[in-house]
Amino acid sequence: MNIPRGLNDLLPDEVIKRRFLEKKISQIFNQWGYREIIVPTFELYEILSQGSGLIMKKEMIKFIDRQGNIVVLRPEMTKSIARLVSTKMQSEPKPLRICYVGNVFRHDNKTRTQKEFCQAGVELIGINNTNSDAEIIALAVECLKNSGLKRFFIDINHVDFFNGIMESIKVKEERKQSIKNAILNKDFVLLEKILSLEDIKDAEKELILKIPTLRGGREILGEVKKIVDNKLSLSALKEIEEVYHLLETYGLEDHILIDLGIIRNYDYYTGIIFEGYTDYLGFPVCGGGRYDNLSSKFNGKMPSTGFAIGIEKLATVLEKEDVNALKVKLPPKYLVYYAKNKNYFQKAMIIAKKIREKGAIVELEVSGKSFEEALNYAHYYKIDYILKIENKESNCMKRIEVTSGKEENITYE
Amino acid sequence: MNIPRGLNDLLPDEVIKRRFLEKKISQIFNQWGYREIIVPTFELYEILSQGSGLIMKKEMIKFIDRQGNIVVLRPEMTKSIARLVSTKMQSEPKPLRICYVGNVFRHDNKTRTQKEFCQAGVELIGINNTNSDAEIIALAVECLKNSGLKRFFIDINHVDFFNGIMESIKVKEERKQSIKNAILNKDFVLLEKILSLEDIKDAEKELILKIPTLRGGREILGEVKKIVDNKLSLSALKEIEEVYHLLETYGLEDHILIDLGIIRNYDYYTGIIFEGYTDYLGFPVCGGGRYDNLSSKFNGKMPSTGFAIGIEKLATVLEKEDVNALKVKLPPKYLVYYAKNKNYFQKAMIIAKKIREKGAIVELEVSGKSFEEALNYAHYYKIDYILKIENKESNCMKRIEVTSGKEENITYE
Repeated sequence: MNIPRGLNDLLPDEVIKRRFLEKKISQIFNQWGYREIIVPTFELYEILSQGSGLIMKKEMIKFIDRQGNIVVLRPEMTKSIARLVSTKMQSEPKPLRICYVGNVFRHDNKTRTQKEFCQAGVELIGINNTNSDAEIIALAVECLKNSGLKRFFIDINHVDFFNGIMESIKVKEERKQSIKNAILNKDFVLLEKILSLEDIKDAEKELILKIPTLRGGREILGEVKKIVDNKLSLSALKEIEEVYHLLETYGLEDHILIDLGIIRNYDYYTGIIFEGYTDYLGFPVCGGGRYDNLSSKFNGKMPSTGFAIGIEKLATVLEKEDVNALKVKLPPKYLVYYAKNKNYFQKAMIIAKKIREKGAIVELEVSGKSFEEALNYAHYYKIDYILKIENKESNCMKRIEVTSGKEENITYE
Repeated sequence: MNIPRGLNDLLPDEVIKRRFLEKKISQIFNQWGYREIIVPTFELYEILSQGSGLIMKKEMIKFIDRQGNIVVLRPEMTKSIARLVSTKMQSEPKPLRICYVGNVFRHDNKTRTQKEFCQAGVELIGINNTNSDAEIIALAVECLKNSGLKRFFIDINHVDFFNGIMESIKVKEERKQSIKNAILNKDFVLLEKILSLEDIKDAEKELILKIPTLRGGREILGEVKKIVDNKLSLSALKEIEEVYHLLETYGLEDHILIDLGIIRNYDYYTGIIFEGYTDYLGFPVCGGGRYDNLSSKFNGKMPSTGFAIGIEKLATVLEKEDVNALKVKLPPKYLVYYAKNKNYFQKAMIIAKKIREKGAIVELEVSGKSFEEALNYAHYYKIDYILKIENKESNCMKRIEVTSGKEENITYE
């Protein structure tokens, strides 16, 4: 008997790492003025499917509840927040800075398994300018840095760079989607095949095939401006340049790349988009971008930008960069042992209480183990000290350092 | 457009309270040596339905996944932990001290709505003695105290007190269930009706009707021993007495009551059970007990005891006891305002960074507001200070205290 394929249990050592990362990231969110919200684990399909790409819709885990609604285990948080903000926080002054930490759920169609994973993210709601795009990207960089990650890049792009090229060569919407998906999946064989079916000039074919390789510093922009001349793409490049400049002002240029091959798996993006990459993993550890029309599907229009960090992915890359990156320092651990004499119990209990008040972790030996068994137990669980109570009156007891075996008579006040 | 009936969004002020309570409770769990685990949000029905009472089975939110499994959104954590411990932690030395914080899901059959709520709880696995029962109850008391709650009682009972009475008067299993449910739902009219159908002596009818009223200190045990004489109930009373004595040793008698009317909504309990009550709510804020056979349904036998605290219920009673109980003190809040001159942006950004490093919350005004608008914004969000950058070179700026309007020229290093 076990759990459904693809789902995970986190054992204590893994939970310590998870909570450490959640804390490091939440700390930055909060210090930047982002306020946390919590939304339901499942919601109506008609809400969560708004603005989702086809792939995402197929990946949703849906069921019918007893009220007859089609509901979905949330596959990400952005749409729930757009729904929440446009119904319950509409009168709050803008910008709204919102953050979240929680699990999301998807069906992985390739492996035919369900996935549950943790995302921590933010939304900056109510402004459409490059300052806010830059704030969000700078915040992503700060979060990754605060988690301990050293070597990473945030790759930035703008949805209209690609849209402009597609418009200028008059590709049909359906075909545009296939081209997008081929680039998204980095399937260049398929991409060439799709392009060969279209009536496109060779120069433009070449440009499209080149898109996934257009990654680098500010110099990329100069290069691209030579080969792209449609207005939409050019205005996208101008916005990228502005955001890049602001991020230089933030002093973050070492962590920023322009990457015109970035395609995000949602249809709701309308401006600057970005993904965080390391050398250690083929997938981005975070991603996000501007979505100015999503809220209008709920109520009034509300320009917004945001991103999410995949906590499990971040844990993976951190440990690939440094095996000790997530070795969290815990408080000292004690085991209070009071022999089998019930009369010592009260003293043991009082001592346990006192040491806990100093911030230590204290287990009380309540299982009736022999001292030798207790010592083995302490070794296994990496307990630092055993406190052995051998009388009931005085404040005196024996402290045994577990690794060295060193004994000492001590007194607790 | 909204969320399914019965589900909730938590807005920022509520999330602060939620996280505060989670932290206060986790802190105690950890200091007592309990290690956190995380289990999947949904699991196989055949696993989670093990040992659940009929009511609980009806309350489960079930669906069929794409692998064809009947799965359930976890209605509580104990069974997931029994499954986890007996598959992935079996070789770890006992006792195992496990804790969790997470959401659980139920269908409320009375109001026909779905509910999602947060439980924080522990399991002490691998020992069957009154010391471990007492540790768990003492831990529940410490958690409630650390959350700030002052007036509450943990009501303790033993499942065999009721079982012994049922056995001695030879009530059929089916009828026993209805009697149990009537006591559980405190439906005394129904209880009398059920009893009148049975061939039970008047003295015994009287005893059963009296059960829900048997609540008090140690004196209750003396009273009850006079009117109950079956072995099972008497041995249950003896265990209650032992646990009560140990809790006196812990110095917790002010928070402990013996309550022989406690019936828990699960069939898996085998020993001491308990629930936490306040004067402010008709439902328990926490509950738990001993379950020695649940693991045997997965693998080897593993005596265990544990409890869960309902975080929403705890928040409710805390605020009924003291409206300010959950007013969490936040770090000072700043808004850095840099006029519309883009040249000041870099300075604003550097200052924001410096103040964040001191632990404060700092929003950067990136929306292009006028200073008056920014001041209104600061008032609305209870921001303490606005830092106004009026030049780009010097370290000097204006600090405006938002409530008083007091201005001061200050320098940041």
